[in-house]
Amino acid sequence: MGWGDLGAFGEPSKETPNLDQMAAEGMLFLDFYTANPLCSPSRAALLTGRLPVRNGFYTTNGHARNAYTPQDIVGGIPDSELLLPELLKKAGYTNKIIGKWHLGHRPQFHPLKHGFDEWFGSPNCHFGPYDNRERPNIPVYRDWEMVGRYYEDFKIDLKTGEANLTQLYLQEALDFISKQQASQKPFFLYWAIDATHAPVYASKQFLGTSQRGLYGDAVREIDDSVGKILKHLQQLGISENTFVFFTSDNGAALISAPRQGGSNGPFLCGKQTTFEGGMREPAIAWWPGHIPAGGVSHQLGNVMDLFSTSLSLAGLQPPSDRQIDGIDLLPVILQGKLIDRPIFYYRGNELMAVRAGLYKAHYWTWSNSWEEHSKGIDFCPGQSVAGVTTHTQEEHTHLPLLFHLGRDPGEKYPLSFASEEYQRALEHISGLVQQHKATLVPGQPQLNVCDQAVMNWSPPGCEKLGKCLKAPESAPQKCSWPH
Amino acid sequence: MGWGDLGAFGEPSKETPNLDQMAAEGMLFLDFYTANPLCSPSRAALLTGRLPVRNGFYTTNGHARNAYTPQDIVGGIPDSELLLPELLKKAGYTNKIIGKWHLGHRPQFHPLKHGFDEWFGSPNCHFGPYDNRERPNIPVYRDWEMVGRYYEDFKIDLKTGEANLTQLYLQEALDFISKQQASQKPFFLYWAIDATHAPVYASKQFLGTSQRGLYGDAVREIDDSVGKILKHLQQLGISENTFVFFTSDNGAALISAPRQGGSNGPFLCGKQTTFEGGMREPAIAWWPGHIPAGGVSHQLGNVMDLFSTSLSLAGLQPPSDRQIDGIDLLPVILQGKLIDRPIFYYRGNELMAVRAGLYKAHYWTWSNSWEEHSKGIDFCPGQSVAGVTTHTQEEHTHLPLLFHLGRDPGEKYPLSFASEEYQRALEHISGLVQQHKATLVPGQPQLNVCDQAVMNWSPPGCEKLGKCLKAPESAPQKCSWPH
Repeated sequence: MGWGDLGAFGEPSKETPNLDQMAAEGMLFLDFYTANPLCSPSRAALLTGRLPVRNGFYTTNGHARNAYTPQDIVGGIPDSELLLPELLKKAGYTNKIIGKWHLGHRPQFHPLKHGFDEWFGSPNCHFGPYDNRERPNIPVYRDWEMVGRYYEDFKIDLKTGEANLTQLYLQEALDFISKQQASQKPFFLYWAIDATHAPVYASKQFLGTSQRGLYGDAVREIDDSVGKILKHLQQLGISENTFVFFTSDNGAALISAPRQGGSNGPFLCGKQTTFEGGMREPAIAWWPGHIPAGGVSHQLGNVMDLFSTSLSLAGLQPPSDRQIDGIDLLPVILQGKLIDRPIFYYRGNELMAVRAGLYKAHYWTWSNSWEEHSKGIDFCPGQSVAGVTTHTQEEHTHLPLLFHLGRDPGEKYPLSFASEEYQRALEHISGLVQQHKATLVPGQPQLNVCDQAVMNWSPPGCEKLGKCLKAPESAPQKCSWPH
Repeated sequence: MGWGDLGAFGEPSKETPNLDQMAAEGMLFLDFYTANPLCSPSRAALLTGRLPVRNGFYTTNGHARNAYTPQDIVGGIPDSELLLPELLKKAGYTNKIIGKWHLGHRPQFHPLKHGFDEWFGSPNCHFGPYDNRERPNIPVYRDWEMVGRYYEDFKIDLKTGEANLTQLYLQEALDFISKQQASQKPFFLYWAIDATHAPVYASKQFLGTSQRGLYGDAVREIDDSVGKILKHLQQLGISENTFVFFTSDNGAALISAPRQGGSNGPFLCGKQTTFEGGMREPAIAWWPGHIPAGGVSHQLGNVMDLFSTSLSLAGLQPPSDRQIDGIDLLPVILQGKLIDRPIFYYRGNELMAVRAGLYKAHYWTWSNSWEEHSKGIDFCPGQSVAGVTTHTQEEHTHLPLLFHLGRDPGEKYPLSFASEEYQRALEHISGLVQQHKATLVPGQPQLNVCDQAVMNWSPPGCEKLGKCLKAPESAPQKCSWPH
C-alpha cells in the first residue's frame, strides 16, 4: 500500500472512512518511512528495530539489489536477532502474528521460534497457483503446522480477484483480542495481512465496490477490517489500554498498475525504488485517551520505531548489546515533540539516499535496468526525471543530488550544486552519513542463496493433510535479483 | 492553486488548517473542475455560468490555443453576457469584487458596468514591474477609479517575495462583510485574490513560515485569510445565513515549480493543459447549519455551477434566453444527491476531452509544442506518458483515448480500444458530445486582437494621482498564443 492510498492522504476516491476516522481520533504521520522498498527486509526491520543491512535481510549478489524471501530462499531471520515478541514475552505479553511472516520459511525461522506464541498465516506471498511439481503452493500455518495451501484449501480466484483471506485474518484478530481480554493478559498482535499485494484479491462483499477497481476493493476491505478491530477494542473496553499503529511495508507497486497498483500520491516512483514513492508510507497512531485527537506529526518516523516504541510502552529497555535503529516515538506521540534523526534508504547493502530534515541526498540513483525496463517492467510509470530516475546505476557519492522535500516532494528539481543551500545541507548530511558508516557492522547476508530443495514441499503437518510433496535434489545457487 | 495544495487534499506538508477545518465543517468536492485551464476564461465562466466558447473568452488565432486577458487585449466580457452580480441585484444583493477581475480592462468591461457595486483590485495579473514606457504597470482600482499601480503604490518585492496584497484584500473583505451586516442587506462577495499566481508573494508575517517555500507561504496566507473570513461571519452571527465556496481557477502552474509552483496531487500535468492536473480543483462548500459537517461529494462539479447555485440560493431563475452550462448544486450539497452531467475540457474552441462518470475521453492531446518545450517551458515536469503528454497536437477524434479516472487518476493507462469497457464508455460519451456540439453556438471570440494602445496607460482617476501615461499609437494585431 502506498502513501497516497488513504483518503486522509489525498486519494481522490476517498474510500477509507475507517482509517480516516482512525487518523481523526489519533495522530497522522506524514513523514513516516519503511526501512526498505521491499517487503521481507521491511518486516524484518520492524520486528528487530534494525536496518536490514544489520539484521541480514539483504543480498550482496549484485550491487544495490533488492531482495526478499521467495520460497526457494535458504536464509531467514538469524537466531542472533532479538525480535520484538521475544522481548515482550519478558513483560508477560502473549504474541500473535496473523498473515505474512516473510522472515524465512525453513524450520529454524518459524515465527514461534522467534517469540510469537500463535500464528495464522503463511510464510511467503500468496503467489501462485503452482503445479506442486516445479513449485509447491504456499502453505498456510496455524501455529506450528500447516493447515492447507493457497489456491487449494484457501481459494484465490485470479480471474475474479475473489478471496476471503482478509476476512479470515480479521476474524482471527477479533478472536485473539477477545481471548486475551478474557484472560486479562497483555498482548501484541502483529496483523501482517498481505492484501493489496499482487495478485490482488478481495472478498465477495467488497468486489466491485470501489471506484478504483480491484485494488480499491482490497483497500476498502482493509479499511473496513481496521474499523472493526478498533471497534472491537472499544466494545471490550480496552481501547484506552491498547496502542494501535497502522502502516505499510513499502510503497505501492506501480508495476502492477492500473488494475493492481496503488497510489504513492505526489511522490516519485514506487516499490523497489529509494525515491519517496518507494519508501514513504501512510501511518496512523491510535490510542484514545492518550493521543490527542486530530494530531498531525512531521516527525521522520520509520517502521523500526515500532520496535522501540512498543518496548517503551511495555516498560522494557531495548537490547544494549547491539545497534538499534528505531527510536521511541512516545514523546512525539504523547507530547508532540520532534526528534532530530535521519532516514536511510538502502538497496542491498548500498546506502542509496539519506533524508535529514527536509533535505534528501541521493548517493546513488537507479530505478531499474534498461534490460528489465525494455521488458515493460517500470517502477516509475509516466514519470521520468532526467538524471534521477536513471536506468543505469548512477553514482553521485562525490556530488550527491540534493532535494528539498518541502518545496519539491516529487524529487524533480535537484538543488544547484553551487548554491549555499546545497553546501549547508550537504555538510550536515555528510556528517550523518560518516557517523552512520563508521559504526555500521553489516550482518551476514541472508538473501544470497536460493535452492529449489528448500521450497515449501513438506511443511510440518503435511502428513495429516496428505499434502507432503517430494522435494527435488538440493541445487544451491546464487539467487537472481534483477532490481 | 492546484487540487493537491491543501492538506485536506493530501499535500504532504499539511499546512492549511483553516481550509481543512472548513472542509471538516462543510462539504469537500473531490471531482470539481474549472471551465478552462487558464485564469480569464475560467473566471468569465464562473460569473456567466457559461463555457468560455459561449461567452467569448477564447481565441481562434490558432488551433486549440489557451488565451487570457493580458493588458494589450482588446476584447473583454461582452455586454450581451449576463453576469451573476447583475442578476443578484434583482434580489437586492450588494455585490463586491475584491482582487483580480480579468474580464477585460477597457472602459466598457469595467466590473461596475457588469453588476458589481464595489471593486478593490486590479483588472490584470500583477506581472511587472514595467517601465511605464513600453508597458505601464498594472493599476489597482477602488470602484470606478484607479488608486495606484502595482510595484509603485502597491509594493511587490520580487527578490524577497514580500507583498501585503492578500492582507489588503482580506481587510477589504472583512470591512465589506461588516458594512453589509450593519445595513442588513444581502451581499455577494467575489473574493478573487490573485495570490499563488506567479510572481508569488506573501506578507512579511508569512514569509519563511512554510515547509514549501515561498509558494507555501502564499498558500498559508490564503488559508489564514479564509479562516479569518469564516470566523468573522460567525462572530457577526451570519454564518448560518451565508453560503461560502472555496475553489481555484486553474490547476497549479507547474512551470513555476519548484519555487513558485504548487501541487496537482496525483494528477497529470498542470495549468495550460486539459489533463486532470490542469483543470481539477480543490473545492469546499461551507454553510453551517445547512451543510452536514464532514460531507464528501463525488459530484462532477464546475466553477460554472457557482453561478446557478448562487442564483438558486437567492431565489432567482437562471436566464432562459441562452444556454447555461452550470447546474444548481444545492440538491448535492444539502441532500447528498448526485447529478449526472459531463465535464467539457476546452482549449480555445476545440473540445479536447470530455468526462462522464469515471470515464474521460481525450479527442485531442497536447501539452505544448516542441518549440516551446525546447525553451524549457514544461507543463508536465517529470511526467511523460507516451502518446498522451504529446508535444504535437494529436487528434484522436475517431478513436479517442479513454481513461478510467477511478483506477487511473493519473491518466497513464488508456483503455484498450478492443475492450468491451471501451466500447460501452465511448458510446455513452459520444452521445453526450454529439448533443453538446449540436446545440453549441460559439460566442464572438474576444481574445483574438491585441493592441499596445489599449494597455493601462491612463485608467480613470489617473489625473488625480498624476499617473496618466501617454499611449502609443494603435497597432492592432493578432495576439500570439503559443500554447
